[in-house]
Amino acid sequence: MSTHRSAQYSLVLRLEIADRPGMFARVATALGECGASIGAIDLVEVRDDVLLRDVTVEVASSEDWPRIADALDALDGVHVIDTTDRTFMLHTGGKIEQTNKVPVKSRAALSMAYTPGVARVCEAIAEDPDKAFQYTIKRNSVAVVSDGTAVLGMGDIGPHAAMPVMEGKAMLFKEFAGINGYPICLDTKDPDEIVETVQRIAPAFGGINLEDISAPRCFEIEDRLKATLDIPVFHDDQHGTAIVTLAALLNACKVTGKTLSELRVLVIGLGAAGVAVTKILMSAGVSNIVGADSRGVLSTERSDYQDGSMPGVKRWYAEATNPEALSGTPADVIDGIDLLVGVSGAKVFPAEALARMNDDAMVFAMANPTPEVAPEEAAPYVRIMATGRSDFPNQINNVLAFPGIFRGALDVRAPQITEEMKTAAAYAIAGCVADEELREDYIIPSVFNRDVAPAVAEAVAQQVRVAGEQRSGDTIGFAAVDAAQTGVVPS
Amino acid sequence: MSTHRSAQYSLVLRLEIADRPGMFARVATALGECGASIGAIDLVEVRDDVLLRDVTVEVASSEDWPRIADALDALDGVHVIDTTDRTFMLHTGGKIEQTNKVPVKSRAALSMAYTPGVARVCEAIAEDPDKAFQYTIKRNSVAVVSDGTAVLGMGDIGPHAAMPVMEGKAMLFKEFAGINGYPICLDTKDPDEIVETVQRIAPAFGGINLEDISAPRCFEIEDRLKATLDIPVFHDDQHGTAIVTLAALLNACKVTGKTLSELRVLVIGLGAAGVAVTKILMSAGVSNIVGADSRGVLSTERSDYQDGSMPGVKRWYAEATNPEALSGTPADVIDGIDLLVGVSGAKVFPAEALARMNDDAMVFAMANPTPEVAPEEAAPYVRIMATGRSDFPNQINNVLAFPGIFRGALDVRAPQITEEMKTAAAYAIAGCVADEELREDYIIPSVFNRDVAPAVAEAVAQQVRVAGEQRSGDTIGFAAVDAAQTGVVPS
Repeated sequence: MSTHRSAQYSLVLRLEIADRPGMFARVATALGECGASIGAIDLVEVRDDVLLRDVTVEVASSEDWPRIADALDALDGVHVIDTTDRTFMLHTGGKIEQTNKVPVKSRAALSMAYTPGVARVCEAIAEDPDKAFQYTIKRNSVAVVSDGTAVLGMGDIGPHAAMPVMEGKAMLFKEFAGINGYPICLDTKDPDEIVETVQRIAPAFGGINLEDISAPRCFEIEDRLKATLDIPVFHDDQHGTAIVTLAALLNACKVTGKTLSELRVLVIGLGAAGVAVTKILMSAGVSNIVGADSRGVLSTERSDYQDGSMPGVKRWYAEATNPEALSGTPADVIDGIDLLVGVSGAKVFPAEALARMNDDAMVFAMANPTPEVAPEEAAPYVRIMATGRSDFPNQINNVLAFPGIFRGALDVRAPQITEEMKTAAAYAIAGCVADEELREDYIIPSVFNRDVAPAVAEAVAQQVRVAGEQRSGDTIGFAAVDAAQTGVVPS
Repeated sequence: MSTHRSAQYSLVLRLEIADRPGMFARVATALGECGASIGAIDLVEVRDDVLLRDVTVEVASSEDWPRIADALDALDGVHVIDTTDRTFMLHTGGKIEQTNKVPVKSRAALSMAYTPGVARVCEAIAEDPDKAFQYTIKRNSVAVVSDGTAVLGMGDIGPHAAMPVMEGKAMLFKEFAGINGYPICLDTKDPDEIVETVQRIAPAFGGINLEDISAPRCFEIEDRLKATLDIPVFHDDQHGTAIVTLAALLNACKVTGKTLSELRVLVIGLGAAGVAVTKILMSAGVSNIVGADSRGVLSTERSDYQDGSMPGVKRWYAEATNPEALSGTPADVIDGIDLLVGVSGAKVFPAEALARMNDDAMVFAMANPTPEVAPEEAAPYVRIMATGRSDFPNQINNVLAFPGIFRGALDVRAPQITEEMKTAAAYAIAGCVADEELREDYIIPSVFNRDVAPAVAEAVAQQVRVAGEQRSGDTIGFAAVDAAQTGVVPS
């Protein structure tokens, strides 16, 4: 992976360069020799015989930075004044903020937005709590809840360290679906306490997005919240991943001519995502699935099943899957597999073993940042390769699912996210790539395809309407509401 | 009160008016006769012989609205098409939103704001959780926490109905101090559960503003949170009111020539605000205070003190105040009182009894929306009258205190709000009215005086620096940070 230059390792170098012909060419040459690609070049200041420039470069790793600075400093007539890590700079002070839809700059505005006028609105909601969906941010707000126990590939890093991810998630809610996301990072890992806490803060929110909570606690926490809250609860690590995986598979089958019911699937990694992917594939018609965790392929023959030490969700998994009662390592059972789904960790699968997969092999290696098998190494053996990364084709990214799912659910005030809504979302995502556009390296729409979230929202809302579960006749467009408000308050 | 027209009862009438000379004069005359004052008049559409107009009117009560519509409809050539309650319209969809500081419209932006780049920021915080104050919204965010048990004058209306007030509070945090406020309305009234819940959600916030939680639970909840959290916890109903009351009193004493140590004070209402006002006055040097609750003047002679049924905080109050051991109703003990503080309910005090106060009587009647004694009725007897309302002079409004207090505390990362910080805030607020500006009806700055919050913030921060309690050397200006971020991400 280390040869891929990425914006995440973007560095701004402030350089003092002697104002002589050919000097910038020497800088550019030195950067090229260091493997850095040059982005923006700004002229900051012109001094006597010296130019001050900000040069933005992208490299493959932050470890390259000192080498680059040293190489430039070594040039005659060049001096590195300062270096700035652009990723850290972007996060400084947080990436989101709370803003007011209308200003409060006059007594008239204050008397309508706050006391005394607000009292009439409160009284209306006190009479009918359902009106909170109309007159407060509840209807368009989702809590992004994490305990920081399973953050990206980093594991249990705690609630403070999880904040940048939850803020990022909130940004995506806003960017792709106009939803107010708010990070709620919990200072507890106890499932009872997490459930209680979310139940207690629920009045302010129209939905709960659980995020980066480790398995198997995540299953129980989601189930209990779904059973007790009257707003949608969605553990994105499970269902977002599952939905987008199914979407990718639907299109991959179109490309390869395979059918879901005849597929043989191997899932590596049986945490939150692996279990959810398996469930959605089964509900979509896949019947032959084998799962493997860190102790190998799961079956009712395995010793920890036999001796009762296997935890509940894996017991279910062992019973519901692996019809051929296979055993061993993932590589031991790869023969004849059509689809390998990796939701585990970096490089856990040997690329050469992929040669034993069925024809038109499909590999979705979604570990982040380093996939289970490197795309370059897998290339000789597979027809369709997908990863979780943005810098390879076919990125299986939850952002294709969760904004549209919550948008659709909030629009019709669905009380929960059902299996049917998830499947509808997967088909909607897959449908955003037209049949004539489909090819091995384009089975899934870009995360920046702006048609996806509205298509998912509409499919999800339609599913709710069909099921007769919507609680609101007024499927309001929030953009329209916001626009109507502008200029209401004299300021 | 009912003769005061107010923007809170602002109505938009959509009228179809025959296009004949003199027609709008008839509309205006009819509105005048109904006691409505006319605001904006918009021409919406010109049809054959008919004009469509939106006419905004302010009246004294929403009960006047049907009468106004009927009066206009009765006019020949005028037809009321629609009426819109502007206050409810303002609240539709909520008054605040979450916005992104930078757009996420490119892979480069995504890779810095979210995966994979965010991982480096998370790791930095995992190594040093204190860095959450630098790289997340924590440092500039305050949770506005309520259980909805004591909302304005409405009492226990529940968490959903409390939302519009908490959103309004969040708006004021942003408008006056640039702070991100987020409403957290809790679906529990149990003090243990409230304390636990706030402790668990604290990682995402730099401060906790408790709001509209009923006494005596609010005292225990605040004390326990202050003892366990390392960020400022501030129950605004107590301390915000107390601080602004002290500020008003400091200036009122300048006007009347009275001194704090010689004042005789009667406090009516011993909920959150009454107790806190009493404490801050005592700590500022007032020694002769008498308090009264719904059962009358508090003393160690009272039967519920004697029989042990008086709750803890009132036992303390009975012991610490009322040096003359007075008893009876508030009106029974008003003789010779210099300052009457009302923090109870509408019209609980008979205006005529004010005649028995000391010369240069001061009355701060802060019940909202209807004061303990009406300013018009009190006028003959008092020299200085203050209320909690915006439509009378001398508004004692918490918004003068809490934005600046949290701004100052967050800027220097104060671990708590101390008594000294509160007193410093009161002096700063009082100081915003220059001595030469001071007069009976101008003892307290306007809530829209933009000098107040910065003055309070600086006084509070300076108090923390003096006490050596600041935890951050980098007193950053958030405006500067936000500005620096603009344009960081290629989009």
